[in-house]
Amino acid sequence: MGRPSEARERVIEAAGELFHERGYHAVGVSEICGRAEVQKGSFYHFFASKQKLALAVIERYLETAEEAAAEVLAGDGAPLDRLERYFTALHERQVGQCAGGARVLGCPLGNLALELATWDEELREALRRGFDRQVADLEAVLREARRAGEIGADVDIGAAARALVALLEGHLLFAKLRNDAAPLAGLAAVARRVLGLSA
Amino acid sequence: MGRPSEARERVIEAAGELFHERGYHAVGVSEICGRAEVQKGSFYHFFASKQKLALAVIERYLETAEEAAAEVLAGDGAPLDRLERYFTALHERQVGQCAGGARVLGCPLGNLALELATWDEELREALRRGFDRQVADLEAVLREARRAGEIGADVDIGAAARALVALLEGHLLFAKLRNDAAPLAGLAAVARRVLGLSA
Repeated sequence: MGRPSEARERVIEAAGELFHERGYHAVGVSEICGRAEVQKGSFYHFFASKQKLALAVIERYLETAEEAAAEVLAGDGAPLDRLERYFTALHERQVGQCAGGARVLGCPLGNLALELATWDEELREALRRGFDRQVADLEAVLREARRAGEIGADVDIGAAARALVALLEGHLLFAKLRNDAAPLAGLAAVARRVLGLSA
Repeated sequence: MGRPSEARERVIEAAGELFHERGYHAVGVSEICGRAEVQKGSFYHFFASKQKLALAVIERYLETAEEAAAEVLAGDGAPLDRLERYFTALHERQVGQCAGGARVLGCPLGNLALELATWDEELREALRRGFDRQVADLEAVLREARRAGEIGADVDIGAAARALVALLEGHLLFAKLRNDAAPLAGLAAVARRVLGLSA
């Protein structure tokens, strides 16, 4: 069974997959333990409740998303090229996820946000902070783009960054609803419109 | 207890409210029957399963949404003014919903879409058709706007209509996540950007 810390990691990973596949309420602790190959007794040694596990899962989703975002958004190239790569990477992630006939799962954070925001304040706050971070990451790139003269002074950076995340989440909803990642292909063009540029 | 058809209506209404408040899996048949003041035996007389009830609830959500949309989108005034009223009405609906300290519940269809799309094909298809209808409604107004010279010939009507619904769903997610309808106030301005107009 390996070290306890490895078992805890396996529980977070298994729950992250299962919540992403089917949501929070549709998945039980027994099923999570089964996929993680961990005894139920160990589960409650690591987590006081499924809700506390969900907090750890959200933290893990955010770390992964932040790493992926930082790699693209803080990488080389002009700010708007990096932003476009960010959308492309997101599209490719959904394509990769459903390779081999698996379902398009959409955004793990967006899914949980709509399922849990009215149900638990602690989870809602954790998810809200996650989206605030994503908006802040995009704001940073848009400020760079403005300094580089790529977007006009009339663009409201905060509203534009929120609109980009909203577009992203909306298109991820479409992709999940169609079980097809294709809707995400049009994101970069619409994003340019939001920034006052021709598509 | 009234006529059976009234009891069936009460079940659909109660389930519509409860699913909107807390989602599909978090709500049980007993709770739905309790709010509808209907015996559990009657429930299974009307609906073979909770999943079949969900189909009826989605149909009802769509009828309500279509009526509200038609009233604004096919009403008087220039096409883009009607589109702006559509966003304003949507904002006001969320404000109204959470009057008196209730939670911001977001979009009933978007919530179910993210919770259920990977779980049940019949529900996914019903929800997909609903969103397709909304996109088609907005496409119709955008075509009018183009004929009236309000938006340019370079705007891809289909992509723009999808982007508007995506923006809407994304901002509804933010509103639910913040338990505050305020994020929806900025929708009309971003929508103008998407249509190649100044905000």
